[in-house]
Amino acid sequence: MNEQDLRQLLDLVRLGALPPERAVARLKHLPFEDLGFAKVDHHRALRQGYAEVVFGKGKTPGQVAEIVKSMLRHKTNRQNILVTRADAQRVKRLAKFHPLSGVITIERSREITGKGEIFVVSAGTSDIPVAEEALLTARLMGNRVEHLYDVGVAGIHRLLEHREKLTQARVIICVAGMEGALPSVVGGLVAVPVIAVPTSTGYGASFGGVAALLGMLNSCASNVTVVNIDNGFGAACVASCINRL
Amino acid sequence: MNEQDLRQLLDLVRLGALPPERAVARLKHLPFEDLGFAKVDHHRALRQGYAEVVFGKGKTPGQVAEIVKSMLRHKTNRQNILVTRADAQRVKRLAKFHPLSGVITIERSREITGKGEIFVVSAGTSDIPVAEEALLTARLMGNRVEHLYDVGVAGIHRLLEHREKLTQARVIICVAGMEGALPSVVGGLVAVPVIAVPTSTGYGASFGGVAALLGMLNSCASNVTVVNIDNGFGAACVASCINRL
Amino acid sequence: MNEQDLRQLLDLVRLGALPPERAVARLKHLPFEDLGFAKVDHHRALRQGYAEVVFGKGKTPGQVAEIVKSMLRHKTNRQNILVTRADAQRVKRLAKFHPLSGVITIERSREITGKGEIFVVSAGTSDIPVAEEALLTARLMGNRVEHLYDVGVAGIHRLLEHREKLTQARVIICVAGMEGALPSVVGGLVAVPVIAVPTSTGYGASFGGVAALLGMLNSCASNVTVVNIDNGFGAACVASCINRL
Amino acid sequence: MNEQDLRQLLDLVRLGALPPERAVARLKHLPFEDLGFAKVDHHRALRQGYAEVVFGKGKTPGQVAEIVKSMLRHKTNRQNILVTRADAQRVKRLAKFHPLSGVITIERSREITGKGEIFVVSAGTSDIPVAEEALLTARLMGNRVEHLYDVGVAGIHRLLEHREKLTQARVIICVAGMEGALPSVVGGLVAVPVIAVPTSTGYGASFGGVAALLGMLNSCASNVTVVNIDNGFGAACVASCINRL
Amino acid sequence: MNEQDLRQLLDLVRLGALPPERAVARLKHLPFEDLGFAKVDHHRALRQGYAEVVFGKGKTPGQVAEIVKSMLRHKTNRQNILVTRADAQRVKRLAKFHPLSGVITIERSREITGKGEIFVVSAGTSDIPVAEEALLTARLMGNRVEHLYDVGVAGIHRLLEHREKLTQARVIICVAGMEGALPSVVGGLVAVPVIAVPTSTGYGASFGGVAALLGMLNSCASNVTVVNIDNGFGAACVASCINRL
Amino acid sequence: MNEQDLRQLLDLVRLGALPPERAVARLKHLPFEDLGFAKVDHHRALRQGYAEVVFGKGKTPGQVAEIVKSMLRHKTNRQNILVTRADAQRVKRLAKFHPLSGVITIERSREITGKGEIFVVSAGTSDIPVAEEALLTARLMGNRVEHLYDVGVAGIHRLLEHREKLTQARVIICVAGMEGALPSVVGGLVAVPVIAVPTSTGYGASFGGVAALLGMLNSCASNVTVVNIDNGFGAACVASCINRL
Amino acid sequence: MNEQDLRQLLDLVRLGALPPERAVARLKHLPFEDLGFAKVDHHRALRQGYAEVVFGKGKTPGQVAEIVKSMLRHKTNRQNILVTRADAQRVKRLAKFHPLSGVITIERSREITGKGEIFVVSAGTSDIPVAEEALLTARLMGNRVEHLYDVGVAGIHRLLEHREKLTQARVIICVAGMEGALPSVVGGLVAVPVIAVPTSTGYGASFGGVAALLGMLNSCASNVTVVNIDNGFGAACVASCINRL
Amino acid sequence: MNEQDLRQLLDLVRLGALPPERAVARLKHLPFEDLGFAKVDHHRALRQGYAEVVFGKGKTPGQVAEIVKSMLRHKTNRQNILVTRADAQRVKRLAKFHPLSGVITIERSREITGKGEIFVVSAGTSDIPVAEEALLTARLMGNRVEHLYDVGVAGIHRLLEHREKLTQARVIICVAGMEGALPSVVGGLVAVPVIAVPTSTGYGASFGGVAALLGMLNSCASNVTVVNIDNGFGAACVASCINRL
Repeated sequence: MNEQDLRQLLDLVRLGALPPERAVARLKHLPFEDLGFAKVDHHRALRQGYAEVVFGKGKTPGQVAEIVKSMLRHKTNRQNILVTRADAQRVKRLAKFHPLSGVITIERSREITGKGEIFVVSAGTSDIPVAEEALLTARLMGNRVEHLYDVGVAGIHRLLEHREKLTQARVIICVAGMEGALPSVVGGLVAVPVIAVPTSTGYGASFGGVAALLGMLNSCASNVTVVNIDNGFGAACVASCINRL
Repeated sequence: MNEQDLRQLLDLVRLGALPPERAVARLKHLPFEDLGFAKVDHHRALRQGYAEVVFGKGKTPGQVAEIVKSMLRHKTNRQNILVTRADAQRVKRLAKFHPLSGVITIERSREITGKGEIFVVSAGTSDIPVAEEALLTARLMGNRVEHLYDVGVAGIHRLLEHREKLTQARVIICVAGMEGALPSVVGGLVAVPVIAVPTSTGYGASFGGVAALLGMLNSCASNVTVVNIDNGFGAACVASCINRL
Repeated sequence: MNEQDLRQLLDLVRLGALPPERAVARLKHLPFEDLGFAKVDHHRALRQGYAEVVFGKGKTPGQVAEIVKSMLRHKTNRQNILVTRADAQRVKRLAKFHPLSGVITIERSREITGKGEIFVVSAGTSDIPVAEEALLTARLMGNRVEHLYDVGVAGIHRLLEHREKLTQARVIICVAGMEGALPSVVGGLVAVPVIAVPTSTGYGASFGGVAALLGMLNSCASNVTVVNIDNGFGAACVASCINRL
Repeated sequence: MNEQDLRQLLDLVRLGALPPERAVARLKHLPFEDLGFAKVDHHRALRQGYAEVVFGKGKTPGQVAEIVKSMLRHKTNRQNILVTRADAQRVKRLAKFHPLSGVITIERSREITGKGEIFVVSAGTSDIPVAEEALLTARLMGNRVEHLYDVGVAGIHRLLEHREKLTQARVIICVAGMEGALPSVVGGLVAVPVIAVPTSTGYGASFGGVAALLGMLNSCASNVTVVNIDNGFGAACVASCINRL
Repeated sequence: MNEQDLRQLLDLVRLGALPPERAVARLKHLPFEDLGFAKVDHHRALRQGYAEVVFGKGKTPGQVAEIVKSMLRHKTNRQNILVTRADAQRVKRLAKFHPLSGVITIERSREITGKGEIFVVSAGTSDIPVAEEALLTARLMGNRVEHLYDVGVAGIHRLLEHREKLTQARVIICVAGMEGALPSVVGGLVAVPVIAVPTSTGYGASFGGVAALLGMLNSCASNVTVVNIDNGFGAACVASCINRL
Repeated sequence: MNEQDLRQLLDLVRLGALPPERAVARLKHLPFEDLGFAKVDHHRALRQGYAEVVFGKGKTPGQVAEIVKSMLRHKTNRQNILVTRADAQRVKRLAKFHPLSGVITIERSREITGKGEIFVVSAGTSDIPVAEEALLTARLMGNRVEHLYDVGVAGIHRLLEHREKLTQARVIICVAGMEGALPSVVGGLVAVPVIAVPTSTGYGASFGGVAALLGMLNSCASNVTVVNIDNGFGAACVASCINRL
Repeated sequence: MNEQDLRQLLDLVRLGALPPERAVARLKHLPFEDLGFAKVDHHRALRQGYAEVVFGKGKTPGQVAEIVKSMLRHKTNRQNILVTRADAQRVKRLAKFHPLSGVITIERSREITGKGEIFVVSAGTSDIPVAEEALLTARLMGNRVEHLYDVGVAGIHRLLEHREKLTQARVIICVAGMEGALPSVVGGLVAVPVIAVPTSTGYGASFGGVAALLGMLNSCASNVTVVNIDNGFGAACVASCINRL
Repeated sequence: MNEQDLRQLLDLVRLGALPPERAVARLKHLPFEDLGFAKVDHHRALRQGYAEVVFGKGKTPGQVAEIVKSMLRHKTNRQNILVTRADAQRVKRLAKFHPLSGVITIERSREITGKGEIFVVSAGTSDIPVAEEALLTARLMGNRVEHLYDVGVAGIHRLLEHREKLTQARVIICVAGMEGALPSVVGGLVAVPVIAVPTSTGYGASFGGVAALLGMLNSCASNVTVVNIDNGFGAACVASCINRL
């Protein structure tokens, strides 16, 4: 039932064609969000306003291609399309495959809706796939995005050389595996929110990213929050969400 | 060495009173942040610009009182003072003890620096201490703060009744123990960032908040980030930091 | 807004006193569950239909007493009152304290609403507090309850002696700590649902009930489900819920 | 020794052909369940009364085919046959392979023995294989089964739209990965037992379903019980067992 | 029903006083272990043949004293009595309190039923309480017991000095906390079974004995088995059980 | 340095050809176990007295074949040869491959050195590989071995039917995955030592055998000890070691 | 048997008073380390050469005092005495109690045996007790020790200001709780070994120091090694051991 | 900006060509470590002074070959090149592949810069890959390296035979899986630092090296520190770092 249906129902009541009792009965079971009200709009905005996103993992390249084709066919709007954790195969003419991150993008709009710059910082070269997923997601959601890779804390001068760049960002996404210490150092250098993404980089006692995750949750910098291990996409969603405020 | 010292050194070089070689030698070992440059200012701003904060846990009431007195004595600025995880005892005339959260506040400024409203939502009555720590911290850091308590997901209607309030917030802090499901539901209802705070509420397989923490890290809502268990203070810092953007 | 309010609103529409547009606007924001519709009723039924329950842990004996007094004063209905994890002190004339389980009961109705018998089985003497919490909860929720204690699997004959009793139950609550093996054996002897409750009984590698919890989750009997460690109350709720079907 | 053998032995005693002492000696070691008594019957009923079940994992398609053929050959009864976690290959004419769940079914009876409807609800599309295993198992065990997929809590309106359907179920199986929050919300909407099935859906800090499992064990809804991760089969067994009460 | 009852029943059948059908009916429900047959005897033997054991933890000194008095009063046999994890208070004239291990013993028989010697070895001084619990339990169960304390592997010569003593044992109980390495070294020096007991000695990454437990389970010596953390009593039961073979 | 070398040295001292001081110096650094003393003999006995064992995992079939050939060539004694966790390929004429357990045996002696019978009991069909590894190891180490498979506790009658067999064993090896409850039940039925072997059978919350391991460590039967997950070989070594006492 | 005993035995052989055969027999069982040979000396040196150490935890102040008195009475050497994890009470005239770390010291020698300087760096004020334990232990073991406290990575400039001091150290002990990131940053600034000590500082997901421990084990700086949580004493032992090389 | 640039800037100031204000502005943002000062040199020394290291894991043989070729082409210095966790393929004329450890070495310098000998000790044959990685790394970093393999603690005599060799080392790297007990025994025999490397050797409750890791962190020998699981490279870096002191 959408707003029009509701209006019709009320018109029927006004015209005496529908007794109030029966209207009460129908309204009692009114499907909650089919009215298309504010929250739903917001909800859709959250999911669709910036980019159409397909989580590619567990889908065959063929399936992904079909979903994307369907998006291209049915959508009149010109929103960007994003496939995360995808394979390179069967990418069509319009699409671009990013091998570092396994992301497929179809850029149909270059409108910038984020107010400032999102900065993606990563600790080691093996964190780059996750950083790239964050970078591409943020970009297709309408943000200006800069990045700075391979600035792990064991060579702190590499990070400090770029302090000024860091301080120009409105939101920072900080990607790190192993001990996950980078967000604490970055958080201490800036006054903006830092979204920390632990990666599954490492071996042995890194426990698939748990060491980095715990390090970030215990960060001594008070402007750091954390998303799931390897969740570059999620970090970009939050950063994008903040950058539109 | 501050900016003035540096200027003097350069004047000496200009006047020929200091040979460049010796200036090089002195500059090589220049204390990095003693120049009082931007990062440091930002850093201080982060720590001091909003409120003086004392982590009361592990300190005696006497120690806390002394630190607070010293703050009141030495500071010319009128910043708010906040003591987290404190005891009620020996709270002086100027200070106010908040028994629910164990927070002591001395409010010396009511200036609002946050642009919008921070909303603190909590799931159960036993999550209130952490929620209150977040609420008070955010308030003393210059934000307008609203709250909504006891809206756990097992009685989803309690939360849905307040959807409109939720959508008016600029940032939401979402506090929950047990299964930690509240941020996922809240995140799905709004388009703003949700800072999730797991609490150690619960028993048995809640493992002191680990169940809630994991739930939040795996949230299916993409605008949710997470801070440490019971870290209401940290959530408020991040929310405050976002609200000033 | 309740059903009457809704009726008035519709009457206003019918009478032409309220234009449909404005009715649409008001209905859009209709508080979801304030209508007092079915789900809410069911929900209340779940919480209140059987017994008023207070979770006593973390409340002082005085607070508990006050809550209970308030229940006795304000309720016109004669539902049973149950305080779990309580202390013995300040129990009033009407209330009965059960020291084994730390449960306080005020029995105001002896109506049996459960169709069959709920059977509470426990493995060791140290599991009895949790078993008793389950037993009392189930009883006050209107069920006939029987019990069989100290029938751990290392002395399997003790359990087997009571097979017939077991097969007469409609639902079985099975409480065990240490290796948590009892539900598997009981589940194999009966055809009815078995609600397994791990207890924190044990030491060392029992890890506060985790060993029992894992044992029960991996039960080779296919009619076993599990609730949280020490959650005798929850097991009784589920059992009661099944017994009313 | 079955009932007839026992009768013969007692006849021998009665006739004086077997001295009581020797009868005592033989009876002392009487195989316990070979008598074919109630528990055994119940036990068989539990295993065989509804469907013949083969756990396919770790068996080759050939082995599974052979077991199923043997069931078809030797059984005079017309019970349904179910193979869980199977491969599609070598499925014979009579059998039907369900690719979503990896279940093979041979439906030989459509008798409905369950009293009400079992409802299978799942959170995300990746939870569907487990949900389907539950759905098919419940159906072949003689239940009317409905389902509702992709109603995760981050889009709560999708679930709320179907509240009425939910309230018509006699038992609900609730399948969810990631944060595992769905059973708490569903549990709060209904008054019937909810069997929660955590799935291994997710990555990083989902730890193969542990996050969902802990979330469900800590559910704030008191009518929720839990089975092992990915155990759709087990949930259906319990639900079926409840639905026959 | 005991053996005599069974004999009577069979006599009734033999005499024609009880029709076989009714005898069948009664025998079908024959309480399994009330016959007092072999398994039960063995079972009792296991529990009672060596010593009456009371697990003192969670009982008040008064309760323990009462249980022990009752044992002394009702038992005609002269078995030893053992209270583990007890307090010193209210120990009566006949009983002896062992402060190191918190064990109370009442020795009423000095009969040696074990065939060889049980050797209790412990790594550090803080492991002695658990070692003593093992030693006293083994001794009161009728074994000759020797011990060797403070022979941790970081001073391997201390252990090697006593190699000969070790090789004279029939069973060795090996108690160690921290890294739990002692059983591997001892196991390599002897050809008899080594029962390893991890202790909760240590701090930090010892995790209350988990480090020692894992070390022992992974022992590279193939004659090592393990019991629960701090379970000196259990180790002595097994050792005693082996020593009677 | 062996015994002969030592004798020569002492002869040199006796003849005055070696001054005591230099002999002291040489003896100080005497290689400890090259003397071939008792512990070493015992040690060898432990490793070689019963069977030559090769841990096949991580070795190619070719490597295993070569090691076994070398054993056959160089050994004058007729000891049995055992390869655990092996592949079937390239097994020579003399060797026998056991596909269930992945064990290769070359039986060259049928001498029975164990005093009694070792009984291998397993819970489910998927535990059989580990049970077979235990059975074959025990047999080749000179023990009479019986077995009883598929007697999991959810069908307790299957185990109880064989109680007498169980009570005839001198040592019992009890293999179980999932909840690992079998050793507790078996331990309660017998008076001999029970070596419990958890298996990695199961899925989800079995955590690769951890659930079974914890269950066994917390066994309420006091004659149960535990070895590592899937360590059928180790259990047989301990059982064999006990059976020779 | 010491060196003199051995000499006597060899003299007896030389004089013909002891036949070589009997000498062989006696030497075969020669107690290994009673000879007082090099390893033992080194071993003692390790334990006693630098300081007498008493682990105070679990001992009463009285017991500690008695042990220390005995050390003062019986030792002719003038070694330093150290009591870790002690209480302040009953400290005698000669002893000094250090309240920050709970260490008691009796300094009887000020000889410096370490070749360079040991530097103790700590992250937060709550890490100081562990840092002080390390500092005092290293000092009493004959090292020059400097320290630098409260230089956590979230305010990286505080650490960088002291880079030069850091580079003058021969060994660095780096103490940190929470995310344990400090050793990685320090390790990257210097070329000497860094001994990382995780502390149990923190709450929630710090899990009593586990987060810091994992962070340090995964350090991206390759000159970092780790000791147990809160083990300032052990870090100082290793540092001291390195500093004497 | 390097030292020369700084000199030029200061010359410009001295000559009056650059006003001090602008020099201040430029110096404020001076890239920290581009000056090529001491710490950076040390840092480079740490990374490059001993060997060029490539972490081969996750790189194709082709990629590794290309990186190595580039090193050979661009470097004028004759430093050794090391590729860890590599494959054998495409190794060029100059390079040597070590199949045991998966390390590729190109030895261009045989200069010994370490002062003493590094000793690599390992427990079992399956620990050799990690031990070899340590050995080769230490050797190419300019150290004399000896090794002793297969001296696990269950055959303690094998280790004790080589005590003298152990005591000649300046640093010991001790590699062990399973229970990880070797470092404790080795640590007790020597007075030099012992770097313990847990390996992922083992199965079941070894949890991929966690059992060994915990054992080593809890070592009762006070001269033991620990690196990550399987981190032979890191252990060699630390050992090399100590051996140059």
